[in-house]
Amino acid sequence: MKELEIIKRKAVQIFSEEELEKKLNSGKKLIIKLGADPSRPDLHIGHSVVLRVLKTFQNMGHEVVFLIGDFTGMIGDPSGKNKTRPALTWEQTRKSAETYLNQATKILDKNKTKIAFNSEWLSKLTLEDIISLTSKYTVARIMERDDFKNRFENGLPLSMHELLYPLMQGYDSVALKADIEIGGTDQTFNLLVGRELQKDYNQEPQVVMTFPLLVGLDGKEKMSKSLDNYIGLNDTPFDKFEKSMKIPDNVLKQYFELATDLTIEKINEIMYKDMREAHFEFAKELIKMYDDINEFEDIKKRYLEIASGGIPEDILEIEIDEKEINICELLVKIGFANSKGEAKRMIIGNGVKIDSKLKQDINEKINIISGKTIVQFGKNKFIKII
Amino acid sequence: MKELEIIKRKAVQIFSEEELEKKLNSGKKLIIKLGADPSRPDLHIGHSVVLRVLKTFQNMGHEVVFLIGDFTGMIGDPSGKNKTRPALTWEQTRKSAETYLNQATKILDKNKTKIAFNSEWLSKLTLEDIISLTSKYTVARIMERDDFKNRFENGLPLSMHELLYPLMQGYDSVALKADIEIGGTDQTFNLLVGRELQKDYNQEPQVVMTFPLLVGLDGKEKMSKSLDNYIGLNDTPFDKFEKSMKIPDNVLKQYFELATDLTIEKINEIMYKDMREAHFEFAKELIKMYDDINEFEDIKKRYLEIASGGIPEDILEIEIDEKEINICELLVKIGFANSKGEAKRMIIGNGVKIDSKLKQDINEKINIISGKTIVQFGKNKFIKII
Repeated sequence: MKELEIIKRKAVQIFSEEELEKKLNSGKKLIIKLGADPSRPDLHIGHSVVLRVLKTFQNMGHEVVFLIGDFTGMIGDPSGKNKTRPALTWEQTRKSAETYLNQATKILDKNKTKIAFNSEWLSKLTLEDIISLTSKYTVARIMERDDFKNRFENGLPLSMHELLYPLMQGYDSVALKADIEIGGTDQTFNLLVGRELQKDYNQEPQVVMTFPLLVGLDGKEKMSKSLDNYIGLNDTPFDKFEKSMKIPDNVLKQYFELATDLTIEKINEIMYKDMREAHFEFAKELIKMYDDINEFEDIKKRYLEIASGGIPEDILEIEIDEKEINICELLVKIGFANSKGEAKRMIIGNGVKIDSKLKQDINEKINIISGKTIVQFGKNKFIKII
Repeated sequence: MKELEIIKRKAVQIFSEEELEKKLNSGKKLIIKLGADPSRPDLHIGHSVVLRVLKTFQNMGHEVVFLIGDFTGMIGDPSGKNKTRPALTWEQTRKSAETYLNQATKILDKNKTKIAFNSEWLSKLTLEDIISLTSKYTVARIMERDDFKNRFENGLPLSMHELLYPLMQGYDSVALKADIEIGGTDQTFNLLVGRELQKDYNQEPQVVMTFPLLVGLDGKEKMSKSLDNYIGLNDTPFDKFEKSMKIPDNVLKQYFELATDLTIEKINEIMYKDMREAHFEFAKELIKMYDDINEFEDIKKRYLEIASGGIPEDILEIEIDEKEINICELLVKIGFANSKGEAKRMIIGNGVKIDSKLKQDINEKINIISGKTIVQFGKNKFIKII
């Protein structure tokens, strides 16, 4: 099982390898769990690390379950301290799940992927159930989680309900009778709670496998939408290309290893080339995996034109009547800005060029020469006025 | 309000006196909560300290609620570590409540006393409710409770469900909309949780009043049934008398202060007397409060006869046919022992006298002289054979 060897090589930790072998050799169709946060349904290539592991398990005939944490998603943060976690409606969590699945099936086999919502069992728990659940776990054990420990020891706020969340997540594994749970290394503690609780509920404990977190385009923080350092699975091929070119040289090899299916030998070969070429290769792999590889050469050409300060050949044309027009009005008219206010901010932010000249005066009148005047916003938005 | 002054003098802590005054002056009928553990329904004079405070509030027109913790009583200890806390059935908790009320109304006005069972609201809580409840409390705050802190810091087992119990007890105050909660000083932490939670549920916080714990007859540990160092409200008048005589001299004044209604002046006057007389006075007060004071002189007389090694005048007579009988058979026949084995153990334990002579031979044949032979077990069980 060559595929399995690749998974095992990529994994940071496996609890335990012996149990994994045993489960895989049992001939049983295994249930592989991946937890998903419905408040963050946008997937990026950081997520693809575990998704591609799941795909391997699917290829081996096992069942993948996306566990959508809709229950906690619908509660939000009852302490009101975490403003980034508003309560979602039932509809929002369903919509999230759909969005999630649509992106994930760019990698996974849709027919072998199940969606489960934990509200199905968590909303039915009574206080008696919860006392029984919490009685199986000591305070000392839950406080081993680094962030809990640090906040507690440093006198930072830590509400009691937060201690319940890992247990709920662990109880999801009990409810699903998960055989294997997969996640990033930042989830190790939570995944192990599930493993331990299953023992208390007389189930065979799930195997826990953790995988490295992909660093973001800043080369520092882990890739995440909120830090805007990500390459999204739903990004346009052009955006994927452009963002790939921004990957810091010193982490590009890691991107190849974690976010593509290339072999180590092939990666080494690419990395020996010119660094720019290596970035092109990475972009090519991404577009091949998630979009249409036939588009690649066109995208590359367009990218190179823009990068050299040129204007791409094939750009959108918009017809307007005016021969002379205020620059802000022009930006609104051609749809670059939604309002004059926004147009002003774009100009002040040094984002607007006309005929390759930076524009900084918000009151400037522009003379339109039909078929010639080209308005540019940022690096790759162009419109020709006709 | 002289009565209120007495209460305030007896209280160890009041949170807060200003709020207490305000509530009492509001003219509202207040709800006074006392928590009761249905697994320990036997009341002793240690409990009478708070019961007599409640009586005062009843006299002032307020409503007393006995909160029977049947919900946790029925769960028992799900971790299975605490063997002294088996799960009770619904019937047992109702029976406990009845027993509790029967004893408590030796002090309280039955018509102004309400019983509430916390299963009524706790069994209806969902996980969402519990997350909301626990989100209002920090881990740091709950870990301030001494026993939690000590066990956590010393690596002793502390299960997560134990942290939920004070919150549940506190939630009882929310559900009852309690105005005042009363308890022993060992309950201070838990009572304050209720006070704090009420604020979070937009209720006026309950006033918390704590009272001293009465020391047991050993003069060391707090009075409790499990330590067998108690004077029970349901003890016979004779037992109350006899146990009163065993109160260590150095704590007798405290017994007067906490367990009787006598004024400080009166107590001081008594304590200046002979110490034995003071014990008699205490016994008299107890019998006056809980039994029939008319019995007091007879009990005292009987006690003195026994204490001086004599035999009381008025003792039970039992007729038997035998003229000669084995001592063990005799003990079974007159009902002192349930079996010969038990009879043997009583003799070996030096508990049995016949005609004031200690009997130590389990095979001895006793010659019965009808109307004369007196069998004695322990200090105060006598039977005359006729």
